[in-house]
Amino acid sequence: MNQIIPIQSKILSENDRLAGEIRSELRKKKIFSLNLVSSPGAGKTTLLEKTISALQDRIRIGLIAGDVQTENDANRLLKAGGTAVQPLVTAGACHLDAKMISGVLPRFDLSNLDLLIIENVGNLVCPSSYDLGEDKKVVLLSVPEGDDKPLKYPAMFRRSAVLVLNKTDLLGTSDFDIERAKMNARSINPDLHIFAVSCRTGDCLVDWFDWLQEMVKASKGL
Amino acid sequence: MNQIIPIQSKILSENDRLAGEIRSELRKKKIFSLNLVSSPGAGKTTLLEKTISALQDRIRIGLIAGDVQTENDANRLLKAGGTAVQPLVTAGACHLDAKMISGVLPRFDLSNLDLLIIENVGNLVCPSSYDLGEDKKVVLLSVPEGDDKPLKYPAMFRRSAVLVLNKTDLLGTSDFDIERAKMNARSINPDLHIFAVSCRTGDCLVDWFDWLQEMVKASKGL
Repeated sequence: MNQIIPIQSKILSENDRLAGEIRSELRKKKIFSLNLVSSPGAGKTTLLEKTISALQDRIRIGLIAGDVQTENDANRLLKAGGTAVQPLVTAGACHLDAKMISGVLPRFDLSNLDLLIIENVGNLVCPSSYDLGEDKKVVLLSVPEGDDKPLKYPAMFRRSAVLVLNKTDLLGTSDFDIERAKMNARSINPDLHIFAVSCRTGDCLVDWFDWLQEMVKASKGL
Repeated sequence: MNQIIPIQSKILSENDRLAGEIRSELRKKKIFSLNLVSSPGAGKTTLLEKTISALQDRIRIGLIAGDVQTENDANRLLKAGGTAVQPLVTAGACHLDAKMISGVLPRFDLSNLDLLIIENVGNLVCPSSYDLGEDKKVVLLSVPEGDDKPLKYPAMFRRSAVLVLNKTDLLGTSDFDIERAKMNARSINPDLHIFAVSCRTGDCLVDWFDWLQEMVKASKGL
């Protein structure tokens, strides 16, 4: 695969350049932005549904729903009450990139947004390499996936600022140990900010909501 | 990304050529071979642990344990009693390819194998594009991931011959509907052979073991 490396590097540096442009545009508009990544089925869309319900009266939220196929996630977010939701179907590609985000961004009224959340494709490997111009990457890991995953997919956990441990309602149904999960994650990235939540029952989601509101305020310089 | 397409095609056609060589070598030796794919944490390694325990006295099993980082899976399989186990760490790459398999295959005594199972990297997107020379691709989908996944990641379900629906012990903990999961999977690939099992409790695993033994017999022309 040696012959692919120069082109791969060129694509990544072009991606970084575009991501930088996106980042400065969003910061100029004082929008706080997140890139939400995880395995398929870890609960990204459910977390966003709950976030919309809880915060949309207080924060103006824009959502980009990335998917390999189907606009199902975007439709779920619209049903949950999201008003600024854009689907982004990659037609088979395994990650979002900055060029895709640049293509979708003009569909938002950025002067009317406080928070932009990009829901990436369900994939714990490839999206880690592509900066989308976000302020912070948030990785979800769900209890049924196992507490060893930070060690097995380290790049994603190293490059994320926040870990949401989801499906805590399923603790006890497997040998998942929440302290071991945190320890494994922090052995890869000691600075990770960790929330352990259940999107199903709502348990501890308030901590996530509070953090989001703090970050939005800070982005506005309040 | 247009500039990557000719090289991507070249890589894939070189991969197909190598996969063809692997396939004919394995068939000449009358070894039945599987490429096991899924999201991270769907239960590939646990399925293999159970398979080793149940069948190793009757079938000579070789295992290639693919991982992005760590040899944890290979170590688990060795502990489970696997005798012919080879780790294959991709060092960050998101899928196995035929060249990696060609590199590992000489470490096996192929004249003493009946069944070769390749455990791919946990990723429901990229591994679907790479033929490894296996007889059949087997995709695992676990209950906590959601019954919509075949529609959202169609390539993997289209290219697999077998679907193992795992973690049926967690049915009832979410809105996962097993009939809807089967219907979604068959809408993508009507020929899918489906096993609904729980690797944790052992429920219905005997059907999977019987199928494997039938396939091994057929590969030997028995």
